[in-house]
Amino acid sequence: MIFLCKKHCPMESRISQAFQTGTFSEQAITLAKRISREIERGISDPGARTIAYESPEAQLRFWEEDSGKTPPEDLMTLVNNIIERSVNLHRRGYLGHQVPPVLPVNILTAALMAFLNNGMGVYEMGMTGNAMEKIVTGKLARRFGFGNDASGFVTSGGTLGNLTAIMAARAWFLKAHPDADYQQLSIMVSEQAHYSIERTFIVMGIPAENIVKVPADDRFSMNTDILEELHSRASREGKEIFAVVGCACSTATGSYDDLETLAGFAGKHSLWFHVDGAHGGAAIFSETHAGKLKGTEKAHSVILDFHKMMMAPSLSTAVIFRSHQLSLLTFSQKADYLWESREEDEWYHSGKRTFECTKPMSIMHVYTAMRLYGDEIYGEIVDRLYGLATEFADRLRQHPDFELATPPQSNIVCFRYRTEHPDINADALNRHILDVITAEGIFYLVSTRLNGSFYLRTSLMNPFTTMEDLNTLLSGITTAARKYPGS
Amino acid sequence: MIFLCKKHCPMESRISQAFQTGTFSEQAITLAKRISREIERGISDPGARTIAYESPEAQLRFWEEDSGKTPPEDLMTLVNNIIERSVNLHRRGYLGHQVPPVLPVNILTAALMAFLNNGMGVYEMGMTGNAMEKIVTGKLARRFGFGNDASGFVTSGGTLGNLTAIMAARAWFLKAHPDADYQQLSIMVSEQAHYSIERTFIVMGIPAENIVKVPADDRFSMNTDILEELHSRASREGKEIFAVVGCACSTATGSYDDLETLAGFAGKHSLWFHVDGAHGGAAIFSETHAGKLKGTEKAHSVILDFHKMMMAPSLSTAVIFRSHQLSLLTFSQKADYLWESREEDEWYHSGKRTFECTKPMSIMHVYTAMRLYGDEIYGEIVDRLYGLATEFADRLRQHPDFELATPPQSNIVCFRYRTEHPDINADALNRHILDVITAEGIFYLVSTRLNGSFYLRTSLMNPFTTMEDLNTLLSGITTAARKYPGS
Repeated sequence: MIFLCKKHCPMESRISQAFQTGTFSEQAITLAKRISREIERGISDPGARTIAYESPEAQLRFWEEDSGKTPPEDLMTLVNNIIERSVNLHRRGYLGHQVPPVLPVNILTAALMAFLNNGMGVYEMGMTGNAMEKIVTGKLARRFGFGNDASGFVTSGGTLGNLTAIMAARAWFLKAHPDADYQQLSIMVSEQAHYSIERTFIVMGIPAENIVKVPADDRFSMNTDILEELHSRASREGKEIFAVVGCACSTATGSYDDLETLAGFAGKHSLWFHVDGAHGGAAIFSETHAGKLKGTEKAHSVILDFHKMMMAPSLSTAVIFRSHQLSLLTFSQKADYLWESREEDEWYHSGKRTFECTKPMSIMHVYTAMRLYGDEIYGEIVDRLYGLATEFADRLRQHPDFELATPPQSNIVCFRYRTEHPDINADALNRHILDVITAEGIFYLVSTRLNGSFYLRTSLMNPFTTMEDLNTLLSGITTAARKYPGS
Repeated sequence: MIFLCKKHCPMESRISQAFQTGTFSEQAITLAKRISREIERGISDPGARTIAYESPEAQLRFWEEDSGKTPPEDLMTLVNNIIERSVNLHRRGYLGHQVPPVLPVNILTAALMAFLNNGMGVYEMGMTGNAMEKIVTGKLARRFGFGNDASGFVTSGGTLGNLTAIMAARAWFLKAHPDADYQQLSIMVSEQAHYSIERTFIVMGIPAENIVKVPADDRFSMNTDILEELHSRASREGKEIFAVVGCACSTATGSYDDLETLAGFAGKHSLWFHVDGAHGGAAIFSETHAGKLKGTEKAHSVILDFHKMMMAPSLSTAVIFRSHQLSLLTFSQKADYLWESREEDEWYHSGKRTFECTKPMSIMHVYTAMRLYGDEIYGEIVDRLYGLATEFADRLRQHPDFELATPPQSNIVCFRYRTEHPDINADALNRHILDVITAEGIFYLVSTRLNGSFYLRTSLMNPFTTMEDLNTLLSGITTAARKYPGS
């Protein structure tokens, strides 16, 4: 229908047009069918393209031309262009960064979330969202082995989740050591940690060089044997170490740190123990793999991205604290008497503890999936993806042309094409292979540097990817390698 | 269809179930119709409820019971409960916080965004998103009056946008003054500023007491007459003032600071000038109201929430810097040689400048609305909402029962019910009125404290709200007031 306001009629043609619900319904149905076809094809067609790569300049030219056209554009014309010019995560060849093909029902909850647009930082604006958040993070906390006092919420991504937790750790330390030299504050973390950990220091205005980066072992997990030595040395240098961070798992290779040992170390030195489970924390849902997270129950804080293996749309990250009081520390200051105003600290005013003031109701994604499919779906996804990674690694190990970087501990597999040829640089060869594969576009994988060398990196994020697909990828790589000049 | 993987068949029932595209299509169509009906009713039915308030405890009980049921739940049963137990922003009675009823087409782009789930922090994962971001923020920068070197991106909300800009300002100052005492850093900002400005200091580890909070005038805009005096005093006390922040507009009353004067003041004292245009920056699209932003063209940085008056779903905030080089400062450190590695600084690797590593492609909302309706739709929305606020304020001024807090400068109107009764506390009376109106649920408005007194606060966020609706609200308030014990 067209709504014509008495007073503003001639001015409001565009608003009225935008709110024609007949058009909206038609567009919604067309879009739903289009997305449905894409999902279907992603599952059934191993040859469908994952990426149609174009250079930044060419891409910009296309969209500049598009944006220069006179409205109105037809929505589906625009949608088709957007889909064709984006990475299609629902393809079986999607093996790229750690973002998932979203669960179909969570495409719908995303639409519902946009319609509702409740900013749940204050209670009334998120009556349902705040309740769901308490329930889901409570369930998660119990899975991780925390006690009843644990408390969590959702924030906009792992970077913010880590920052929220490290800020709480900082406040916790400074309350106990008000005279500590701020510029000497430090934490200990694996050299394989995600860059967001280092960034917390840049944000907080503490030299990032203060961070004690613990070398990794040959599986790219933290070498915990040297923790004591590094701690002593840093302390002698005047560093005020206030926290130790465990990776569960690391970004490049998906390696889990030994969280049990880290928990013991943190306890001995009265450090805050934070677990960055952004990617691998989802293993808590798997009977087979939950053991990798052993030790998390002794952490002060842990984060888990719902928008990774739990297949929710980004961004949606759970931050869980061992106790409600710890969760209130993030935005506290030295002078605060934190627990004076009980009322404001209630669970249903989430804005007090989170960065967001307008806080999206993204908790709906996981709540809905749990209600429709049961929590077990997350265990199935983890089992499937981790299992496939193990199979893939076995295949690579048996294959004479390939070198596996390290046995996978999660769904991330790094490897490279071998060359014994004296005139061929292995890094350049593998970079060339990646360019060829990306240009073909059936598969999308990425790269990483390990011990200074260039490796191909796959995150197996799509539960419909099969070993057959991965064999096809390896054949493609071999073909590309053999065509490499000088081979 | 049901996809059955050869090897994992018995384990994967839930994943297969979640990816049945037939079910997805049906659910999508049902949901689209439901949302369409809600939008339609919001426009046409002035008596439809905006909020069905329930206490946090009752709400939690309901959802705990719900979450305890055995899956599978029917999606639409769940959706109906969620809608009924959330605030309905598409109702004409929605006058609450500064989040909008989302443009219908942006409900669809939210679904598309979830399907694509491209994390655009690296170029290939956001080929389209990065191009759109450059185009839209470029258009915005030109509207604000910046030169060709201006550069912007989108981040997850105003709090993060302000933090991103203030961190750049901090780095800019510390590069010029490497020996400045970090704990003495300070900025100047109106006492009426959003709390996210103060929070930037808590995050950065600088005492929030350092912030020079400039008193407001009787229209709740910054009193710029005393800037020089406050600056001198703070400098004498050893404060290192590095930035001045202008509100465009303030949160409580929607008052614009005098940005021209602030720009001159910043220039004179070599301060970074940041404009928090989270809410009122959208006025740049209105021929009538863009003048309120005069002076922004001299700012170093400005933010604008797309998820406020531009009616995009939250979170989606533009951060625009006067130059590309300034935009690279946020995560730099003193020791960085920023412009050494040209390649990484290219526009299409947005992750380097933003908090997000996985960065949602939320730019699609505004790009799509611009292509379908033209940029003019945003001017229409601003004109409509600001115009309605002026009308509403006139009505309140003429009405003997009401007291207007201040003439509105945007779409925010604060007022209270008058009482001359010696035994009635005006704050308690107005709080009671708010409780009654919220319990009735046709209207949802909020409250604020101004000069120590309790005021009712309306943000006119819905372009379909009419003066008739607001008259109905005033009648309801009068009725509630007359029933107040002792009246």
